[in-house]
Amino acid sequence: MASKIITISREFGSGGRTIGREVAKQLDIPFYDKELVDQIAVGSGFAPSFVEEHGEHSPTRSRFAYAFSHQAVPGVMNGMSTADFLWSIQCSVIMDLADKGPCVIVGRNADYILKDRDDVLNVFIHADLDFRADRIVRLYGESEKSPEARLQEKDKRRRINYQHYTGRTWGMSTNYDLCLSSSTLGLERCIDMIVSASK
Amino acid sequence: MASKIITISREFGSGGRTIGREVAKQLDIPFYDKELVDQIAVGSGFAPSFVEEHGEHSPTRSRFAYAFSHQAVPGVMNGMSTADFLWSIQCSVIMDLADKGPCVIVGRNADYILKDRDDVLNVFIHADLDFRADRIVRLYGESEKSPEARLQEKDKRRRINYQHYTGRTWGMSTNYDLCLSSSTLGLERCIDMIVSASK
Repeated sequence: MASKIITISREFGSGGRTIGREVAKQLDIPFYDKELVDQIAVGSGFAPSFVEEHGEHSPTRSRFAYAFSHQAVPGVMNGMSTADFLWSIQCSVIMDLADKGPCVIVGRNADYILKDRDDVLNVFIHADLDFRADRIVRLYGESEKSPEARLQEKDKRRRINYQHYTGRTWGMSTNYDLCLSSSTLGLERCIDMIVSASK
Repeated sequence: MASKIITISREFGSGGRTIGREVAKQLDIPFYDKELVDQIAVGSGFAPSFVEEHGEHSPTRSRFAYAFSHQAVPGVMNGMSTADFLWSIQCSVIMDLADKGPCVIVGRNADYILKDRDDVLNVFIHADLDFRADRIVRLYGESEKSPEARLQEKDKRRRINYQHYTGRTWGMSTNYDLCLSSSTLGLERCIDMIVSASK
């Protein structure tokens, strides 16, 4: 296949974002991650840091979430929860980005959002717990929680968010064209394989 | 990684066996599928056709299964069901094959059976329903059941067998090092990627 658009879903700490950035560089196409968050933020009226925190996480339906969302965008969200509103913005931003041309999109359930296009290569990156624990401590430093607890918490929220908005199981191989263990294969080999598969 | 042993799990009709055979040929290492069935059969005292039918399928605990198994191997199975007895034979055959040296093993939950070795590359091959339906009709001909029903039935039995004996979810990417969609990537590219990943 000649994929114009590559989506990369990933376990926290697996190196999926680093892999995606390098794939985009080698293919000379745009890479969307933080940039995507910013675009979603602009569309939703939320602060970028708020979008980054909630964009891939469990849908929240608490009173606080409703109250907060109404305050943030008065009259626009029409009773939707913060998470549902972010999801609707996220879908339109990602579909617009895909329409613009070849790119790499990391996270944000882009594999599902673009499921009706036939020019998309969907990739999932995962890795052993030890590999990921070591990696997040090196990249993001220590915190009060153990690295294992941080990994489990982040992935649990991604899993619930994916399940909620797509009805699919996060990390199930049949949702993706290519699933790679970065701890077994190494980041360089993952990059090579994705670049090769996209051509 | 330099993998000596490659296990290939696959959806029915995805071409996993064909891919495995070609990978073994290119790496010049033994390929175990029908041959493995025969070895298991020799160990269990069952007919090869019986082993092939039940070796990857749902564990059966019916009275018939017990009665049949006692008849097949009197005094040996010690109250185990046919499926449990086949599983124990299967485990020892696969562990013995792995001990002999580099090889490709298709199916039979070999990824789980060899989970304590660190020289194994675990691969899962899947494909779109249309691709697989077309493929099984070309390879195995028509039958009374629709191709889609045949695919679903066979995969359901493999899924239940895997879940029962491993406690894992069949096709979940984190169980494997490499999951490939043969309908997206094509068989040739899957072969190339597995060979490359094994070196």
